[in-house]
Amino acid sequence: MRQSQLFTKTRKEVPADEAAKNAQLLIRAGYVHKVMAGVYAYTPLGLRVLEKIKQIVREEMNAVGGQELIMTSLQPKEVWEGTGRWSEETVDVWFKTKLQDDTELGLAWSHEEAIVSMMAQYVNSYKDLPISVYQFQTKLRNELRAKSGIMRGREFVMKDMYSLHATKEDMDQYYDTVIEAYKRIYERLGIGMDTFVTFASGGAFTKFSHEFQTLCDAGEDILYISDDKTVAVNEEVLDDATKEIGVSKEALSPTKTAEVGNIFKFGTEKGEQMNVTFKDADGEEKPIYLASYGVGITRVMGVLAEKFGDEKGLVWPEAVAPYKIHLVGLNLEDTEVKDWAEGVYSSLKDAGIEVLFDDRVEARAGEKFGDSDLLGLPYRVVVSKKGKENGQFEVVTRATGEVRQLSEEELFADFTN
Amino acid sequence: MRQSQLFTKTRKEVPADEAAKNAQLLIRAGYVHKVMAGVYAYTPLGLRVLEKIKQIVREEMNAVGGQELIMTSLQPKEVWEGTGRWSEETVDVWFKTKLQDDTELGLAWSHEEAIVSMMAQYVNSYKDLPISVYQFQTKLRNELRAKSGIMRGREFVMKDMYSLHATKEDMDQYYDTVIEAYKRIYERLGIGMDTFVTFASGGAFTKFSHEFQTLCDAGEDILYISDDKTVAVNEEVLDDATKEIGVSKEALSPTKTAEVGNIFKFGTEKGEQMNVTFKDADGEEKPIYLASYGVGITRVMGVLAEKFGDEKGLVWPEAVAPYKIHLVGLNLEDTEVKDWAEGVYSSLKDAGIEVLFDDRVEARAGEKFGDSDLLGLPYRVVVSKKGKENGQFEVVTRATGEVRQLSEEELFADFTN
Repeated sequence: MRQSQLFTKTRKEVPADEAAKNAQLLIRAGYVHKVMAGVYAYTPLGLRVLEKIKQIVREEMNAVGGQELIMTSLQPKEVWEGTGRWSEETVDVWFKTKLQDDTELGLAWSHEEAIVSMMAQYVNSYKDLPISVYQFQTKLRNELRAKSGIMRGREFVMKDMYSLHATKEDMDQYYDTVIEAYKRIYERLGIGMDTFVTFASGGAFTKFSHEFQTLCDAGEDILYISDDKTVAVNEEVLDDATKEIGVSKEALSPTKTAEVGNIFKFGTEKGEQMNVTFKDADGEEKPIYLASYGVGITRVMGVLAEKFGDEKGLVWPEAVAPYKIHLVGLNLEDTEVKDWAEGVYSSLKDAGIEVLFDDRVEARAGEKFGDSDLLGLPYRVVVSKKGKENGQFEVVTRATGEVRQLSEEELFADFTN
Repeated sequence: MRQSQLFTKTRKEVPADEAAKNAQLLIRAGYVHKVMAGVYAYTPLGLRVLEKIKQIVREEMNAVGGQELIMTSLQPKEVWEGTGRWSEETVDVWFKTKLQDDTELGLAWSHEEAIVSMMAQYVNSYKDLPISVYQFQTKLRNELRAKSGIMRGREFVMKDMYSLHATKEDMDQYYDTVIEAYKRIYERLGIGMDTFVTFASGGAFTKFSHEFQTLCDAGEDILYISDDKTVAVNEEVLDDATKEIGVSKEALSPTKTAEVGNIFKFGTEKGEQMNVTFKDADGEEKPIYLASYGVGITRVMGVLAEKFGDEKGLVWPEAVAPYKIHLVGLNLEDTEVKDWAEGVYSSLKDAGIEVLFDDRVEARAGEKFGDSDLLGLPYRVVVSKKGKENGQFEVVTRATGEVRQLSEEELFADFTN
């Protein structure tokens, strides 16, 4: 992509009401556009990051047998009344609306009831189970406050998976499989070492749910972690969880974290409330077992921006960066330098490398470097008149600041491996 | 994909209130799930079709310089009040909702105002123009009636592109470029020959907009087409358009069609109303020119289902079919046949061919063939005991009914070309 063609531009200022670092950096760099508090559009650079996160999550969900589908935002009242979750006293984040004949509708903030209601027509026998389905869905949540940028939005993208089982054992086993899949996701996203499977508050069926929490100063949670990092407990269940697992509270140290995933066993609760059953091997009708597994896709993007961003701008892990290389052309008013830069741009693209080419002729070097730091692509490759004379490129690794001078041959050897 | 793993099942019955052929077939075959009138979820097979349609549209929009982004569903009132389109007297399809502090919000049924409002911060000079952006967005429209299945939903997926220009000439030229891109889209979708660029009702800026209309008995429009098929006029503007282009009404014949695209020049209307301007080469502030270009992605899927579906079921054009081959295994209780079928399934997948493998052991041949016709994949390849003895596969082309007996070598030669 040519930067001269990109309609977004970097900015010095951010909306006055924007307090969160993630949104400030993302707005200044042109990854997101703020529509209102908690509601952000994703411009081409931002959408590329989202799609890369989604693809990693998709591959791991497919690997554990998840089937991708897409449910609806509009929700009929009846489906949620059966479980008591239509009431705004129980669920305080509903956006609701009405058909022209005044029929009340909800806008989905989650999809357990929608999935279970749909599955009623596909599940008859234990032979139809297990089933695991997932979606990438835009969720709407009527949050009272929305001050954490894209980490807690009123409109956001979530991967939610739901698994249905005939027995508790089968659910438990699959749940553990998904925990491993989640670990691979965070590993691939570049936050594996800093992400903890955490005891968190449960529900009617289980005492605890599990959150995946990532070390992050801007996080909204306090995690208690053991020195050897094998035990992590959310503050909200500290007393209960330490008692349950037989660990002393004093052995755990508090640290700020951001939730990047949450998984939950509903057990037979929804099946019973909604009367969704199957015939077991003995012909007996039994309620299905349900577990659900969420990853906030936009939230993860926000956490990555918060966690890795520095005073100069964003710093993307390679797996989610919108482009791998930022090819920064200097002295492009010189035809020979320009031709060389264009040639390198073509060759990198031909080699299958994702490149953003700062081909702007009028912008000064300082402005280009500032923009490059702000945009945060993993590698900056500088093409300049001086470099041309030496037959070299300056290559800067954004995350470490490491500077190398590479020949064209070395450059291609480095980036095509 | 193994059919035994697919959680959807074919059905004989459809919801009692479902009158549209497209939805009846799609529900029976397990491509969509009806949540309520005009609101459908897309199960794994359906989502694959949608994604294939999207990818064709995406490639053609990229080819004309469109930059993909994603806007928001939640819309602030202020943005739409400026153009008079917040009012439900002007726009009768709004779904509206409220924040917890009672601030009114709209749920986007279109995005012109949202795009223009956002672009105000990126467009300063004529040098920033032209800009062309598009998205695949779930639109919500509060339709009074929703009886056409997925052809006219209350929740549906649309590709909407918006182009901004400094001059009328530039807008006109780009508009014509997009018309050609649209023709390529419908060509690739398998409906090129039956799709017409049509004069339709315009707005404040132009007398006419252009629709892309496809011959379809279930269509909601009447098109008047000349014998040589070079002129097509929507009934709603028949008098005006024939006068304008100097064609006699008698030279045009009426036929039923379904709209599969609509493009529209707003000119300077939105720029003026919303005060979004740029500095021209002389330093003068001028309102931007705007055009918008829609393709209803879910609607196109519905039109394909209506147009090509027959009494046995769906018939997908190859470009959008969820899988190219339906590998139907018979006599799978015979281990030798089963092993052979599994081997063929692996080999086809290894050759990069998309295959749905009916690996169900218990289902009878008649049931499998009925399901296969209903699912509508382009080619059915039958693996059976008798075929194994002869070293042959029965290959049936769904659209034509053509039956061939092919050896394994011929089969792979045929499908890997």
